[in-house]
Parts: sequence; C-alpha cells; structure tokens
Amino acid sequence: MPRFALQIEYDGAPFHGWQRQADHPSVQGAIEQALCKLEPGPHTIAAAGRTDKGVHGLAQIAHCDMKRDWTPFRLSEALNYHLKPNPVSVVNCAQVPDTFHARFSATERQYLFRIMPRRAPLTHTRGYVWQVKQPLDVDLMMEGASHLLGEHDFTTFRSTICQAMSPIKTLDRLDITNVETDHGTEVHFDVRARSFLHNQVRSFVGTLERVGCGSLTPDDVKTALAARDRAACGPVSPPHGLYLAKVLYDTPPFG
Amino acid sequence: MPRFALQIEYDGAPFHGWQRQADHPSVQGAIEQALCKLEPGPHTIAAAGRTDKGVHGLAQIAHCDMKRDWTPFRLSEALNYHLKPNPVSVVNCAQVPDTFHARFSATERQYLFRIMPRRAPLTHTRGYVWQVKQPLDVDLMMEGASHLLGEHDFTTFRSTICQAMSPIKTLDRLDITNVETDHGTEVHFDVRARSFLHNQVRSFVGTLERVGCGSLTPDDVKTALAARDRAACGPVSPPHGLYLAKVLYDTPPFG
Repeated sequence: MPRFALQIEYDGAPFHGWQRQADHPSVQGAIEQALCKLEPGPHTIAAAGRTDKGVHGLAQIAHCDMKRDWTPFRLSEALNYHLKPNPVSVVNCAQVPDTFHARFSATERQYLFRIMPRRAPLTHTRGYVWQVKQPLDVDLMMEGASHLLGEHDFTTFRSTICQAMSPIKTLDRLDITNVETDHGTEVHFDVRARSFLHNQVRSFVGTLERVGCGSLTPDDVKTALAARDRAACGPVSPPHGLYLAKVLYDTPPFG
Repeated sequence: MPRFALQIEYDGAPFHGWQRQADHPSVQGAIEQALCKLEPGPHTIAAAGRTDKGVHGLAQIAHCDMKRDWTPFRLSEALNYHLKPNPVSVVNCAQVPDTFHARFSATERQYLFRIMPRRAPLTHTRGYVWQVKQPLDVDLMMEGASHLLGEHDFTTFRSTICQAMSPIKTLDRLDITNVETDHGTEVHFDVRARSFLHNQVRSFVGTLERVGCGSLTPDDVKTALAARDRAACGPVSPPHGLYLAKVLYDTPPFG
C-alpha cells in the first residue's frame, strides 16, 4: 500500500469545509470521489488542516494510501482529471513513507488572512478577501497582536464547539502588513502555530480589525485574552479571506 | 454641465467588451444604465481604452457629463449602488475641466498580461490568468520583445478588423518578468504605448509565448515584424489574462 502526500489548492466557496459530510459537498469528499475513479474504494484521506466552510486552501497537505504503484506525476494528473470541474487542484504529489501522516506529522500550520479596506465594491477579488469599508491602522493592530504571541489559554478566541482537549496553544507568529496589489492596498495577516483551536484565526482577525478601525484599543486585546471568556472576543471574521497557506514537516514530503 | 472623470475596475468575463452594443452586455452599457438611474438619459461616456470581450479593467478611465453638481464622492457611491450586481466598480471620481477627454487627452496606456505556466488546474485565479502547460523562458521572451520596442509598422500584430488609420505605432515598453504569487510563479507582461492597434497586446503575448516555450526563436519575432504580414503573427492570446492597468494624462484627473 504505497502512501502519497498531496499538496492541494482549493477555492472554499462551493464547499462546506474540508471534512467529508453526508449531505453537503466537501473538499475531502471531492478528492475521495476522484480516488474512487482510480481504484475501488472506499478511500479515506487525512489532511493537515480541517478548514471550515468557505475557507480556502493554498497548500493544504493530505495523504492517501493506494493499492497500485502510481508514479506521483500520473496520480496527480489522474486526480486532477477526475476532480474537474471542482475548483480543487493537486499541485504536488510525492510518495512518502508509511510513517508520514499529513495531520500528525505536521509541525507548523501557516494561515494567510486578507482584508481589503475600501469603499468601492470588489470585482476580481470578490470572494477572496474580506472587504471592510473603513481604513485600518496596521501599527495599532500589530500592537494588539503582540499580546497574543507565545503560550496562552486561548479560550476567548476559540469557538464554543471546539473539540480540542485543551485551550492552551502556542502562537509562533502573527504579523500584519500592508500589501500593495493591483486593486489597492490589502492588509495581510501571517499567522503561524503548531496547531490551532477551532475559529482561532478568524477570532484573532475579527478582534484585531476592531482595533485597526479604532473601536477597540490594543490593550483591549490583552484584557480579552486574560478574560478567558468567549464573550470577550470581537466578531469572528468571515471565512472567505482565510487561506491555509503552508504546512511544515520535519521531513518535507516534496523535498 | 459638470464633467467627471471615473476610474473603473471591472471583470471582463460577463461582458462583450467595453463598447456599448445593442444585443450584448457591455461595461459601457452597464455604466450608462447606472447613470440613467441618477439623471434622465441618454448618457454617452467616453473611455481611454475600448477593451475587447473578456478583457479586464484595473484602472480604466472614462468621463461623463452631468446636469447636477454632484460631489465626486456621492456620484461614485450612487453609481456603485446602481451597478450592482455587475462586477464593475467606480474606484475613483473627480470633477475635471471640460477640456479633459478620457480618450483624446490620454498620453499613455499601460497593459498588464498575466500567464501562469503550470500543469495543475487553476482554482482562485481561474479566468484571471492565461494558463499554459509548459514552462516559459523569460530571458528568451525578453530578447524577442526587444525587437518590438520603438516606432514600427505593426501590421503583423494588428487584427485584420483594426480600424486605426495607420499601422505605425511607438511601443514605449514591453517588460516581461517572473512574479511570485500565492499560486506559483506567473509571467507578467508590462506593455506601454501612447496608443495601441486592435489586438496588438494579445498578438505580442501570443507570439512571445511561442518564443518562451521554444517553438519560435527571438529572431523570429524580428522577422515577423519585418514581414508586415498578419499571417506572420503567432496565435493571438486569449483575452482573460489581459488588464488595462493604467492611463496617463498630462494633468492627472485624480491629482
């Protein structure tokens, strides 16, 4: 049973998240259906990050076990053929040892969140950034974000339906920068940790957006974190600005 | 009759080009219909570049004449309200002297063309770049492009239905660069001239793409130009990688 790692890019809009569901389209379901066209199923694949409904993947990593000795190139080409017309694409494929597990071997997840502050409606980037109408002060947002770095009890920034055993996580990075694009200046969040709680990134972004527009102070973020109370969190941001951007492993599957 | 300059961003996909047509949706038609909601028509607006079917606008410039003394902010907000749900957005608006003409006052048009060379299907950028399956050698493409700079008879790179009086134009810039994106490395063309012939940019790009993949040499571009023969042109590129990116004026309308 050779095992293959897959690097997957997807548009989250048409899916009810990564995870397979009985009655709704999912990215996992789309890929497993494509695998069934290649070898009789059932197929169950595991992924580094179970992204929510509407969240995008830039470089989601999953693994699958096959019966035949596919060359990685043929496997990715065949999967992409059968994935059409879904906006899901296998961008990289490599055979990996049986000890590789897309979820449990991952040492860091990196998320990108894009905000576009402008009044004029979006055209080409509609569905790919969170549009807000007022300007954002990135320096204030960075000051607020500084309180979140390191190991904390993140109960405030965790969905009430989060299934993680513990609310204690270590946030490695939360950088916020202005990025020039063809459509104006976006605000990008670069958020990194070994693992995240459910809705953690969108809870961070929603709260820090309130800091950026002046309705919260940077110190309010510190107070909210210390409260360990979900009610102290700002509004959770919408999903369509969020991208699972990169997953790190001690032994990178694609060399 | 106060005159206003409009900076317009649009997704070309649903339109049969900029220019108003009786039986097909157009960007000009969408904006003129929105103007009719603000003041009784008919309205006729002029634009810097009459983009073809499927071509995008990043910063198209048009002007309109109004009866009322709109503040530019109110005019752009009202237009954007009535443009919904079209993927057309007024990003900037300013009152300008009657001597300003979006088309005839323009001193330079700048176009962006995006190619994505990769095998895996596109997801988020589908419809926004021209995907080719083979790698492209940007150095060879730049060498080919160098033959096109300056004043030439561009008959080879001109649509047979082009209505320009003369095929002689001056190409100010044709830069080709690898640009890192979230989805991999794209090849971007930065093409600038006072004015262009019909299909000129897409004829350049289609021919230079053939150079980049090795089926033409850089010198073949020189030969094709010298032939002054439409048949010597490579395949015309598809429209959805092309963007009208910027228009210059001696007196910039937005300061």
